[in-house]
Amino acid sequence: MNNSSKNQHISRQFDDELENVLSEVLAMGGLVEQQLVNALKSLIDGDINLAKEVIDTEVEVNTYEVKIDQECTNILARRQPAASDLRLVTAVSKTITDLERVGDEAQKIAKRGQDLTEKHSGPRSYYISIKSMGNLVSSMLHDALDSFARMDSKSAFDVANKEPESDDQYSAILRQLITYMMEDARNISGALDAVWVVRALERIGDHARNICEYVIYLVEGKDVRHISLEQIEKEIINK
Amino acid sequence: MNNSSKNQHISRQFDDELENVLSEVLAMGGLVEQQLVNALKSLIDGDINLAKEVIDTEVEVNTYEVKIDQECTNILARRQPAASDLRLVTAVSKTITDLERVGDEAQKIAKRGQDLTEKHSGPRSYYISIKSMGNLVSSMLHDALDSFARMDSKSAFDVANKEPESDDQYSAILRQLITYMMEDARNISGALDAVWVVRALERIGDHARNICEYVIYLVEGKDVRHISLEQIEKEIINK
Repeated sequence: MNNSSKNQHISRQFDDELENVLSEVLAMGGLVEQQLVNALKSLIDGDINLAKEVIDTEVEVNTYEVKIDQECTNILARRQPAASDLRLVTAVSKTITDLERVGDEAQKIAKRGQDLTEKHSGPRSYYISIKSMGNLVSSMLHDALDSFARMDSKSAFDVANKEPESDDQYSAILRQLITYMMEDARNISGALDAVWVVRALERIGDHARNICEYVIYLVEGKDVRHISLEQIEKEIINK
Repeated sequence: MNNSSKNQHISRQFDDELENVLSEVLAMGGLVEQQLVNALKSLIDGDINLAKEVIDTEVEVNTYEVKIDQECTNILARRQPAASDLRLVTAVSKTITDLERVGDEAQKIAKRGQDLTEKHSGPRSYYISIKSMGNLVSSMLHDALDSFARMDSKSAFDVANKEPESDDQYSAILRQLITYMMEDARNISGALDAVWVVRALERIGDHARNICEYVIYLVEGKDVRHISLEQIEKEIINK
């Protein structure tokens, strides 16, 4: 084997390793996405078994996180990735931390759903708003992962751009829940469970935005974590 | 210059770079620690100006995060760190993410403190419990950073071991706040601000524990993120 074909061979192996890590990130993302959808369904339908399933998925998500992180470290140790590949490894390592936290939040939603189903009765008019915010946040997570898969910084920006909408829904539901608590002190404990649910959804929106920021970093080579949406749009997306 | 002294020169430079990154992490940690202490003080004393100072520190914390992450990427791109140095870079990159989030939570405490001072009057017997939990969590963060500075996995474990205590305090204060809300509907809005404060404290405890887990990973070479405290103690600390 001459040197050039040997190098090609190594680089091919390296590409395979990166491809493999990427497909694992997307598999982990798919799992977490499903966890969120099921958590919301278990809450709305009062389905205790589905909630249990969501909670049990934690082990699988954690295993992905540790395994992918280990693979990233191996790649860094054995290869000396060039700038863009290095950004990919960094983006992967940060993305899986956010995905694991989304899984945690989905688990919390499922647990609060169990509590609401088992311990609290009474009207739940606020479920409609939670469902609507849940749909928004789920679609943000889905689209964030999609922009990651396609390494598309423009669509990543579009997802990040939806965060203010999710923040608005969050504040509106909180106001609704406070009113509900004030109407009758017996609503307080149950409404607080609902408060934690919307809080978890709000955090998932944050994580989806974080993932989008890593995609922009990966594609554009710019760290945009603490830059306003207007500035990202002006300087990076429409440059 | 012969090859050996050239290698020594390179390795010396490399050590200097790592030292530099480490001291920046500790400087960032010190800043965030102060942010937390000031946030709690601003809440308890009703000090609006101090709260504003905490909120304004965000920019400085963010700058540290982006700068240190960039330095980690540079080190990975220009050197090929051996296993233990590579673990150091990974641990640094993850630690600063947690530190930045601690800063965010401190900021939230300061903001809620402003709201409590400006909008809500009434008895605040729960402030004593919040202060106590605040002290516990501040000391956890301080000791976590200390174990990082000394790369001491045993003391890192001791800090992680305090998390259940912080969780207990968290649940106790929540119960106290729910009772307070039930007593008088006019307490609800203010008590909810207090709920967010204890929630932020609980999360800071989580982040302190995360940092301890990176220290154990760094020193012992084992990823302990999803392993129980008992197992860590048995298999790693007292091995």
